[in-house]
Amino acid sequence: MATFGLIEYADATPEVRAVYDDIMATRKTDWINNFWKALACDPALLKRTWEDIKQIMAPGALDPLMKEMVYVAVSVTNGCPYCIASHTAAARNKGMTPEMFHELMSVVGMANESNRLANGYQIEIDEQFK
Amino acid sequence: MATFGLIEYADATPEVRAVYDDIMATRKTDWINNFWKALACDPALLKRTWEDIKQIMAPGALDPLMKEMVYVAVSVTNGCPYCIASHTAAARNKGMTPEMFHELMSVVGMANESNRLANGYQIEIDEQFK
Amino acid sequence: MATFGLIEYADATPEVRAVYDDIMATRKTDWINNFWKALACDPALLKRTWEDIKQIMAPGALDPLMKEMVYVAVSVTNGCPYCIASHTAAARNKGMTPEMFHELMSVVGMANESNRLANGYQIEIDEQFK
Amino acid sequence: MATFGLIEYADATPEVRAVYDDIMATRKTDWINNFWKALACDPALLKRTWEDIKQIMAPGALDPLMKEMVYVAVSVTNGCPYCIASHTAAARNKGMTPEMFHELMSVVGMANESNRLANGYQIEIDEQFK
Amino acid sequence: MATFGLIEYADATPEVRAVYDDIMATRKTDWINNFWKALACDPALLKRTWEDIKQIMAPGALDPLMKEMVYVAVSVTNGCPYCIASHTAAARNKGMTPEMFHELMSVVGMANESNRLANGYQIEIDEQFK
Amino acid sequence: MATFGLIEYADATPEVRAVYDDIMATRKTDWINNFWKALACDPALLKRTWEDIKQIMAPGALDPLMKEMVYVAVSVTNGCPYCIASHTAAARNKGMTPEMFHELMSVVGMANESNRLANGYQIEIDEQFK
Repeated sequence: MATFGLIEYADATPEVRAVYDDIMATRKTDWINNFWKALACDPALLKRTWEDIKQIMAPGALDPLMKEMVYVAVSVTNGCPYCIASHTAAARNKGMTPEMFHELMSVVGMANESNRLANGYQIEIDEQFK
Repeated sequence: MATFGLIEYADATPEVRAVYDDIMATRKTDWINNFWKALACDPALLKRTWEDIKQIMAPGALDPLMKEMVYVAVSVTNGCPYCIASHTAAARNKGMTPEMFHELMSVVGMANESNRLANGYQIEIDEQFK
Repeated sequence: MATFGLIEYADATPEVRAVYDDIMATRKTDWINNFWKALACDPALLKRTWEDIKQIMAPGALDPLMKEMVYVAVSVTNGCPYCIASHTAAARNKGMTPEMFHELMSVVGMANESNRLANGYQIEIDEQFK
Repeated sequence: MATFGLIEYADATPEVRAVYDDIMATRKTDWINNFWKALACDPALLKRTWEDIKQIMAPGALDPLMKEMVYVAVSVTNGCPYCIASHTAAARNKGMTPEMFHELMSVVGMANESNRLANGYQIEIDEQFK
Repeated sequence: MATFGLIEYADATPEVRAVYDDIMATRKTDWINNFWKALACDPALLKRTWEDIKQIMAPGALDPLMKEMVYVAVSVTNGCPYCIASHTAAARNKGMTPEMFHELMSVVGMANESNRLANGYQIEIDEQFK
Repeated sequence: MATFGLIEYADATPEVRAVYDDIMATRKTDWINNFWKALACDPALLKRTWEDIKQIMAPGALDPLMKEMVYVAVSVTNGCPYCIASHTAAARNKGMTPEMFHELMSVVGMANESNRLANGYQIEIDEQFK
């Protein structure tokens, strides 16, 4: 169970319900996942986090699927099991095919490898990149 | 300077030159950046790393610009200054606009924040995500 | 089960028991958690780690509750499930309220986000901070 | 230089200036550090990040100095040179003494060590911590 | 279950079976662990990863046991439960004794601690190390 | 400069000098690197850290060169520039050849890559590894 429990819709204050309603409306879904139910123990944290994510993940110069895949890439690099599971599911819902996932993982793996090689060989940044 | 120095084209063995030539031809450029010159101290490492990157970063289910931006996202999350500089430059060369970069950074920042919130609140993975 | 098993008090050597006794006396508790039982497979590691933690976590310029919350902040950033569970429990025992925990998590989340933004934008350190 | 440059006050739009003014007023200072000047290339990112930080770092169940020290602890664990320099300076301005800093670093170091030991020994979470 | 399932030998294409056969022959074992069965969903990723690992982990200037222990050290530092379990098992098969494991963990813990101390104290690199 | 300055031998208290003397005697060298001079601002931290490192890095079931290379592997994975520079220099002094370094980096790079693949594919631990 989450550290301070999960707030179900039926038990939520009007302030928390308003966020839950907006999450479900924005995502065109009828349930709330545990991440939000855990944050709801602190309504200010819940509201701030949701409003940030809503703004950041909206369509823009990058499309929502690409943003979701970047979210997966970061979560995989940080090793966060909850975020990997939830954002991989979200990316699949938005159209990520197995082929796209395999290529994403290949890039993530390669980047993690070459990040460490650049560290280990103590390579100076080329003038052309400054 | 890199740990075991940088191998310039003029000083390279034919084996290393063949990789350098392929890098320049594939990338349509006329110079080699320090990452490859450092790895060239170990020709097997140079060749293996280049062939992997060439295969992974080629067009596929994901386009090369998206792959480059994922590379940036991972490098930023790992905090690798060399990789951030070189792959941000590469992404700009492939068409990343400032707006795309800002949105990329917004997603990367948000994912890093929520990865830690999910850890800290010890949130269990919803059945729906399994 | 831990890699090389867990050493219970009844099975411990006098050397290990002395550390266990000191842990229970210092913490005013009557049980030993798995972390110590696992390290006890290497008595030198057990003794060194306990003596370091005992010295570091004692009251000083920072009070023990604040130290425990810093421990949680680091464990959350590193994503160590065992340490998050054990040090969050310890912080609650030392008086951390839900409000304090929520604010702690808010700072940890924000710091992780801005750490990556500073990396990604390749921001130089201001003269005033040097 | 930062990836897309730094926006000086004299060159800023009214929207950006409003944030700069609020930063200086809130912090009782007369200059803006590079972090904000870099984010100002994306006014939405600047505004969102500042409002979050302003809300999170305000006095609450935890005092501002403690929050600043937690920020340092996370930045040190992530290895972000910019954030370490800027938040250590901020913590000193808020009253962190050398003794407090040394104890903070001792806890951060110890937590990073024991996080890895818990991983390496594959230690299961005690029932008491669940 | 892994994101896109696990490919069992009986269900594998000849291309995948060839890799599985080489893994079992190289490792002198009669089963395939889940890591490879998951990667097999993308035969190109499977083949590339196996050929890299086969080349890298072969005897050379470093012996295979030492390489396996370095693999454990990295996996522990990154906090990857799957890799810690699989490479610790592999290291034990190659002759790692409990004493060697305890010393390995001691070094890994110490390095993680001092890495953060060096960050936190903002220590400049000595001329002698450049 | 380090956060609270560097303590030179000439300016050190007898307590700090005793540690400096032991470092130089143990390492058979005639100078003290910046890491210790920075920690010396907190004599208790200096003494504790040195005694731990002295005990941990001594010959045992693993030889000192192997321990030094594990230290490099962790520092590279964490991306700590100071520690990479100092421990790579130490490993070379203890006999690490370029070939050994290249193989070490190859393993470190590969481990970082496969750690992320195991995360991303959400692979369950095989029964055989438990």
